[in-house]
Amino acid sequence: MMITANTKICGLIGNPVEHSMSPAMHNAAFTASGIDFIYIPFRVEKERLEEAIGGLRGLNIRGLNVTIPHKVAVIPFLDGLDELAEKIGAVNTIVNDDGRLTGHNTDAGGFLRALTESGIEPTGKKVVVLGAGGVARAIAFTLAENGASPLIMNRKLEFGWAVGLAGQLEQAFNIKVEALELTKTNLEAALRRVDILVNATSVGMSPNTDDTPVPRRLLKPEMAVFDVVYNPRKTRLLAEAGAAGAVTISGLEMLVWQGALAFEVWTGRKAPVALMREEALKALGDNED
Amino acid sequence: MMITANTKICGLIGNPVEHSMSPAMHNAAFTASGIDFIYIPFRVEKERLEEAIGGLRGLNIRGLNVTIPHKVAVIPFLDGLDELAEKIGAVNTIVNDDGRLTGHNTDAGGFLRALTESGIEPTGKKVVVLGAGGVARAIAFTLAENGASPLIMNRKLEFGWAVGLAGQLEQAFNIKVEALELTKTNLEAALRRVDILVNATSVGMSPNTDDTPVPRRLLKPEMAVFDVVYNPRKTRLLAEAGAAGAVTISGLEMLVWQGALAFEVWTGRKAPVALMREEALKALGDNED
Repeated sequence: MMITANTKICGLIGNPVEHSMSPAMHNAAFTASGIDFIYIPFRVEKERLEEAIGGLRGLNIRGLNVTIPHKVAVIPFLDGLDELAEKIGAVNTIVNDDGRLTGHNTDAGGFLRALTESGIEPTGKKVVVLGAGGVARAIAFTLAENGASPLIMNRKLEFGWAVGLAGQLEQAFNIKVEALELTKTNLEAALRRVDILVNATSVGMSPNTDDTPVPRRLLKPEMAVFDVVYNPRKTRLLAEAGAAGAVTISGLEMLVWQGALAFEVWTGRKAPVALMREEALKALGDNED
Repeated sequence: MMITANTKICGLIGNPVEHSMSPAMHNAAFTASGIDFIYIPFRVEKERLEEAIGGLRGLNIRGLNVTIPHKVAVIPFLDGLDELAEKIGAVNTIVNDDGRLTGHNTDAGGFLRALTESGIEPTGKKVVVLGAGGVARAIAFTLAENGASPLIMNRKLEFGWAVGLAGQLEQAFNIKVEALELTKTNLEAALRRVDILVNATSVGMSPNTDDTPVPRRLLKPEMAVFDVVYNPRKTRLLAEAGAAGAVTISGLEMLVWQGALAFEVWTGRKAPVALMREEALKALGDNED
C-alpha cells in the first residue's frame, strides 16, 4: 500500500476497535480496485466523539464506519441521515461530501443483501427476531421496510427494549408487531409459524460456543436461520439448524455486505465482495488463533 | 504495510500536501523500525483548522507535522509549545499525549542538525540569512539560540518582515541583529565578513533553476553555504558555492533531519536517518519526473 497526498482516507470509529475485520476487508478491496484509498481504525472515546466528527470534516476524511458505542450518539453531529438510518435511529456509515456529513445504516442493507443473496426474499414472511439491541433494530426495520412481519423476542431483563422496538415499528410502518419475552414456551409457540429466525443477540459467540438461543428440537427444515454472530462462523445454532435441514446464513455475510455497501457509498464503485469475504475469513482466522 | 486496530497514526496537515516527501520518509522509517505506526497526509482548509486539531484529539492521532499555511495559525488550538517553538512563533510538529497537544519546531532543530552534521558549529559565527519568512524565522532563532550572530536580508517588498524578525531576535536573545535590504551592494558588503550564508528564500527552486540569490563572484572558499531549497538537490547557488571551494549543505538535509526529530518526538525511538534520506531522495526523483 503506497500512501500519497492523493490518498483518500476512510476508517472506523469505535471503542474498542480491536478485533475489527473492517481494515483488512476494506484495504484489500481498495487495493484490488486500483483506487487510492486507505482504511484506518480510530479509537474514539465517548467524550471526544464531537471532536472526532469535526476531525472528519477538518482532516478531509472521506468516510467512516461507526461502531459501538457511537452508532446512536453520533447522529446529532451529522448534517443529515438517509431515510432508513433516520427510522432506525442508528448510523454505521458516514460519508463526507465536501464537509457535509450524511449518515447511513448499511447494517440494515447488509442484512437484507445477505438474506436475498441466499435466495430468501423477505416480502410476506413471518420472522422471529431474537434481541432488541442495535443490530436487532436495524434488522427489524429493514424487514418491516421490505414487507416482512417481524416478531421481537427479548429476555426478561431487557424486555422493555423489545416492547419499545415493536411500538416504533408499528408507528413507522403502520403494521402490527408483537413483542414477546424470550422464554421456552413463547419461543416454542413463535417458532411454530415462522419462515425466518434471526438471532440478533450475542448468544453463541466465542468463547461461549456451546450456548445457543434456541433448543435444537424447535429447528425445522422449512425455516431459514440467520445468526448475526460470525465468530465462530458456524455457531451451534447454525450447525443444528443445518442438521435439521434449514437454510442457514452466517453473520459473516452481513458483515461482508455492510462493508461492501459502505465501500460503494464512499467510492462510487462496485465492491469486490468475494475478495472482502475472503479477507474477513482470513482476519477471523487470525482472531481465532 | 499492515494496518490494524493497534496502528498508531501520524500525519501531515497543510494545503496543498501534494509533493510532500514526508509520507515516503516516515512510512519507510516506521516499517524499518518494526513499529506499528502509519503516516498520512491530510489536506486541511484554513477555515477547518480548528476542527482538524480537534480531530487530532478525537480520533486519537499520535502526532502531526504542520506545513503551509498552518504553521502559525495552529498555535491557539494547542495546549502548549516547547520553548523554541514559542520563541519562533511557529510549529511544524505536534505531539498528542492523551489529548494534551504540544507544538514543536523541528524545522529549527533540523536546520541545526544538518549544519552540525556537516561539521559546522554555529557558536560565534557570523551568518547572513536571506529571507524573513517562516523558514528564515526558524533558522534565525535557532542560530541566535546557539550563539551565532545572524544578519537578516530581505528584498524591498518584504523588508518590513526582516526588520520585525531582527527586532524579535534582539529582544529574545538580548543581542544586536541587523536587517538589510537585499540589494547587490548590501549583499557584497555583508558577505565580506561572513562565516555562513543561508538562503531561506525560494530563489532557485524548480522550475526556476537558473536563478540564484547571490552572484557567483561573492562566494568564497572560507564560507559554508546552506540552501533550504531541496528541489533541485543541487541548486545553482550550491553548485557555484561548491565550485568556489565552499562547504555546501542542501535543504534536503534539513528536510530529513526535521523529519527525524519529529519521528523521535512521536515514537520515542532513534530515527533511521540514512533510510529517511534515501526515501526522500527517491520521492524527490519521482517529483522531478
